Amino acid sequence: MKTVGIIVEYNPFHNGHLYHARQARQAAKADLVIAVMSGHFLQRGEPAIVNKWARARMALENGVDLVVELPYAFSVQKAEYFSKGAVSILHELSCNSFCFGSENGRIGDFLLSAEQVEASSHLLNPLIRKHMRKGVSFPKAQTLAREELFEDTLPLDLSQPNNILGFHYVQANRTLETPMEPLTIKRQQAGFHEEALSDQPIASATGIRKAIHERKGLKAVEQYVPPSVFKELTRYYNYYGQLHSWELYWPLLKYRLLSSSPSELACLYEVTEGIEYRLQQAARSASSFTDFMQAVKTKRYTWTRIQRMLVHILLNVPKEEMNEALESARYIRLLGMNGKGRQYLNEIKKNLSLPLITKAAAYKKELALDIKATEVYALGLEPYSSHSLVLSEYNEPPVILT
Amino acid sequence: MKTVGIIVEYNPFHNGHLYHARQARQAAKADLVIAVMSGHFLQRGEPAIVNKWARARMALENGVDLVVELPYAFSVQKAEYFSKGAVSILHELSCNSFCFGSENGRIGDFLLSAEQVEASSHLLNPLIRKHMRKGVSFPKAQTLAREELFEDTLPLDLSQPNNILGFHYVQANRTLETPMEPLTIKRQQAGFHEEALSDQPIASATGIRKAIHERKGLKAVEQYVPPSVFKELTRYYNYYGQLHSWELYWPLLKYRLLSSSPSELACLYEVTEGIEYRLQQAARSASSFTDFMQAVKTKRYTWTRIQRMLVHILLNVPKEEMNEALESARYIRLLGMNGKGRQYLNEIKKNLSLPLITKAAAYKKELALDIKATEVYALGLEPYSSHSLVLSEYNEPPVILT
Repeated sequence: MKTVGIIVEYNPFHNGHLYHARQARQAAKADLVIAVMSGHFLQRGEPAIVNKWARARMALENGVDLVVELPYAFSVQKAEYFSKGAVSILHELSCNSFCFGSENGRIGDFLLSAEQVEASSHLLNPLIRKHMRKGVSFPKAQTLAREELFEDTLPLDLSQPNNILGFHYVQANRTLETPMEPLTIKRQQAGFHEEALSDQPIASATGIRKAIHERKGLKAVEQYVPPSVFKELTRYYNYYGQLHSWELYWPLLKYRLLSSSPSELACLYEVTEGIEYRLQQAARSASSFTDFMQAVKTKRYTWTRIQRMLVHILLNVPKEEMNEALESARYIRLLGMNGKGRQYLNEIKKNLSLPLITKAAAYKKELALDIKATEVYALGLEPYSSHSLVLSEYNEPPVILT
Repeated sequence: MKTVGIIVEYNPFHNGHLYHARQARQAAKADLVIAVMSGHFLQRGEPAIVNKWARARMALENGVDLVVELPYAFSVQKAEYFSKGAVSILHELSCNSFCFGSENGRIGDFLLSAEQVEASSHLLNPLIRKHMRKGVSFPKAQTLAREELFEDTLPLDLSQPNNILGFHYVQANRTLETPMEPLTIKRQQAGFHEEALSDQPIASATGIRKAIHERKGLKAVEQYVPPSVFKELTRYYNYYGQLHSWELYWPLLKYRLLSSSPSELACLYEVTEGIEYRLQQAARSASSFTDFMQAVKTKRYTWTRIQRMLVHILLNVPKEEMNEALESARYIRLLGMNGKGRQYLNEIKKNLSLPLITKAAAYKKELALDIKATEVYALGLEPYSSHSLVLSEYNEPPVILT
């Protein structure tokens, strides 16, 4: 079977994702689409709006055949590590190609840019450091350094968020012994962070979440998601009484910040340069997560970098544990599949070099961070639902769509 | 001025406390009653039902002239340390005597018993250890050892909770260079832990809290507290929308237990013998604090010892910090006074060997644990009230009743 891999978060799944999954299948002439998906906490440093099984179901109902989880060690990470983790999992699953959406849409531009940047890395890195010394964030310094070095000679506009991610996928793929074929499709409408909803059927996930969390109700987003997703979101909300957002975890984060010593906070992943004092001070007077972020933000750190740091603080993840997990989080955690996905998995199972995990209970040690992520994620729910969600983490078999 | 000291928690202040304050003044022929009172977390390992300023006000309105705070380092502690801390503060404040309520009511019995126990401590301690090896709790082992050693020759029944506390006050007082005169009065009606309310005007604080927390409403306890206390409780409830109980802090405690590693928990004060595993396991499935305590309790630990341990976990207090604080928490934190109290304080101020703290802002380091206690205690309230309570910790002048 010919397979194409995609890297997703589905927060939540919407019509743009449907388009992406279909186009990926077509572009790759693939029989099978495999998605590697972030679990309960996402690359931008946020809790997922619904849990990972619900999101896996959305995927399977809308053009994906197999869904595996991107471990926490890679999912709540800057683009480089996120990409490395995701690409290596697709590769391990023997994908022939992988396909990502981008603002650019031409794979040649990605390949050329990756070559150019790699060839000049010895020149680029000192420039990045120079700009960082002026107090700007790392991504901003990268952009400035690239502009200085390449002026307009880089074919890819790396100030666009999906171009950046794609660029890192392509870079990660180039380091594999047997790289997959990289493919990209041009994203339709709605920019990545576009918050305003329009009358088009495609809106950004950011815009959709915003509409939901501002209590405009699920109805307000019905036109932007496939009918099965609308049903899933409604079912989730009715069952759990909640969709998840940072505000739900703010009391816990505030408690953690106030009850920890600065030196305890400084041991946690991504907490550097004394920002722990700034976080504690802001936590003292902030009355909501939004409030808190407004007080904490600085031009030295991107919004998402701060949010990722806060996820690591919320989960109490020490630097040491995360650095170790970056090396050792080597497993395939199956979240869901349809008949075709199952058949494929049976075929390749014997060639897998990593453990294939269908039930977490037997892999508590390996999955420690993912399990902790679920336990903390579940605390956003009422006790009964919370407990049942944690039991799912241990015992839920993969979602199977027949 | 002749002064008598009393050791209190006022959780909440009730008619029995009023009786105690009056009798203490009479018995000591004192011009002034000084209370040393636990702050936001109490000896039995519980959050106080209302904050310390409200409780200081209740005291001042009902027969107490001066209220100072027993530091966290002593208040959330077994009887020995609790007594040592409280007695030493009363002594520092130049009390001529101190007076406690007891089931026994005869001071001679306390003095004789203290002498007898001290004289036999070399025999008693091995017996206590013997009983503990059989897996019973420390207080139980103490009782068994005393029964074995003294049979019925000890004049004091040390199985009664107020007798035990008084016994430790007397012991602590004996170690002072210039001991105060110890006095005791017989407690009226209602046993210490008596939970059922009767038609008498005196009920136990336990019974009163139980009635309140079981949502019988404040009206149900009106007859057991002075009118000013009833007003204060009502005002508090209307302002903060809450009276405090462990259930309010259960989500935070559960989060702390689930997001900490066993070795992190094992570093905290009173967490010993691998009980951290038991706590984590119970936290996973418990849906309330009551539920959790039922799952955790064991005959090896008393209920209050476990609760105290949980307060230290909630506040994230390491063994090291607490052991240090037990030595270094040497200050007089003024919570409130009336005119007579103020006059007395002016008289003795120059003779105080410890700092007299009226505003915490200047003593952040010394008060670190008390401030943390307030910050965590405040998290039980809505954001706005929570913030104002924390500001009180830093800036609230003592309650002054004129």
